[in-house]
Amino acid sequence: MPTRPIGIFDSGIGGLTIARAVANRLPLAPILYFGDTAHLPYGDKSRELIRHFSSRISHHLRDQGSRLMVVACNSASSNALDAVHDALGPSFPVVDVVSPVVEGVSQQFPGGKVGVIGTRATIDSGIYQREFQVRGCQVVARATPLLASAIEEGFAENAVSEALLQAYLGDGVFDSVDAMVLGCTHYPLIAHQIRNFVPSTVQIVDSPAWVAERVARVLGEPMPDADRVHAMPKPQHRFLVSDLTPSFALGAKRFFGEDVQLEESRLWDL
Amino acid sequence: MPTRPIGIFDSGIGGLTIARAVANRLPLAPILYFGDTAHLPYGDKSRELIRHFSSRISHHLRDQGSRLMVVACNSASSNALDAVHDALGPSFPVVDVVSPVVEGVSQQFPGGKVGVIGTRATIDSGIYQREFQVRGCQVVARATPLLASAIEEGFAENAVSEALLQAYLGDGVFDSVDAMVLGCTHYPLIAHQIRNFVPSTVQIVDSPAWVAERVARVLGEPMPDADRVHAMPKPQHRFLVSDLTPSFALGAKRFFGEDVQLEESRLWDL
Repeated sequence: MPTRPIGIFDSGIGGLTIARAVANRLPLAPILYFGDTAHLPYGDKSRELIRHFSSRISHHLRDQGSRLMVVACNSASSNALDAVHDALGPSFPVVDVVSPVVEGVSQQFPGGKVGVIGTRATIDSGIYQREFQVRGCQVVARATPLLASAIEEGFAENAVSEALLQAYLGDGVFDSVDAMVLGCTHYPLIAHQIRNFVPSTVQIVDSPAWVAERVARVLGEPMPDADRVHAMPKPQHRFLVSDLTPSFALGAKRFFGEDVQLEESRLWDL
Repeated sequence: MPTRPIGIFDSGIGGLTIARAVANRLPLAPILYFGDTAHLPYGDKSRELIRHFSSRISHHLRDQGSRLMVVACNSASSNALDAVHDALGPSFPVVDVVSPVVEGVSQQFPGGKVGVIGTRATIDSGIYQREFQVRGCQVVARATPLLASAIEEGFAENAVSEALLQAYLGDGVFDSVDAMVLGCTHYPLIAHQIRNFVPSTVQIVDSPAWVAERVARVLGEPMPDADRVHAMPKPQHRFLVSDLTPSFALGAKRFFGEDVQLEESRLWDL
């Protein structure tokens, strides 16, 4: 009997950076990915609408056999986590992208000062601020709304992303932080450029790795054994999007790091 | 009995530039505006999904009493006009934002060369190219996908929009055109900046004015008489959005040029 897949959803293809980290950490686990390209971006939508979309997708991925749900979108993790739990029932394991990062960073920098950037929906939810403060860390948070769309459009590590970072971070808002959380699945693609807008002492947090580690912990998966992995057949991943256009098909590879065959699953028809 | 409103819909608040022009040309006509902020942007979505959203909104605005429908979104005008006609029935008057502009510009520049920029959905539909060519004009068209989101985010006439225009137009693609069509409702807000990327001889087309003139023609409305207008009570406009967030409320004024009271109408719940 084949292993049931790990469900992962995001507003679009940015969550493939999380899927990549999960696939690296659990190389034998099949992944069922859903990108809600019919409704992206979530970052400028209301809390209520993000919850509506997230519930619907969670139902769908559970019905497709998922054994665990990763809410790979920061905007959804920040605004819709209880709605996802409600949709899936109390015993269904859910991993969000906020709490593993907060837990990891606050242990690494006890009493430290942490910078967070994210979409408007993520930052306005206040979740990073609350969760870090509960653990004794100070937080400096700022919404950087257009950044995700720019990266999705391929403006990464170039003049456009530079102008955006200058507009959002050019005032040195993060000059005194110890660590910097990239609170959006797209941002790792411009991590090198973000580095130029904070002092060299600041640690840029690798959020996808923390999330993947949490998934492994919840599933009780030990660190992968390279010999064993190579001897086994590669798992069959599936990548669904609610609206399939050529540009998403092209962009997916940049986020997942290898060829991705997207399938359309019209949740909007339901 | 109050006059039935002119229905106007767009993917978001950008179509308020069209609503503004319609209100200027028909100052006594009430407007019923719908911005599909729950699903914007349309510019990167598939033809089929744009048709799905456009049909649903058209039904809604007709049921709310509209006497004419303006498809203020270029992506919808380019991909979903027949779906709107199907939704409203053959006798319901519909005005799109492409054909009035093509008609006006091709009469002004017979046999001329016309530049068009727009979203991916608009440019990839090929409608501007076909319609201008049928009227004997040459067309140079280019998709400028991130521009609308950037303007919606307030990046207008600044370093970010400059970097984007440099990326999209910096190769001088429009150096030899006679006129330039801004094929997206957002672009008029950076018309001054676009002007710097084309020779000074190029005419930047005022699309909203052409659309408003078409609306007036379809309704048989003569040019407004200032004395008569001042003597009459101002019409009551209504501005609906499918997802209401503070940033849309703030942004609406920039596009309509005066205070706008947005109301939420959750078409996505239906």
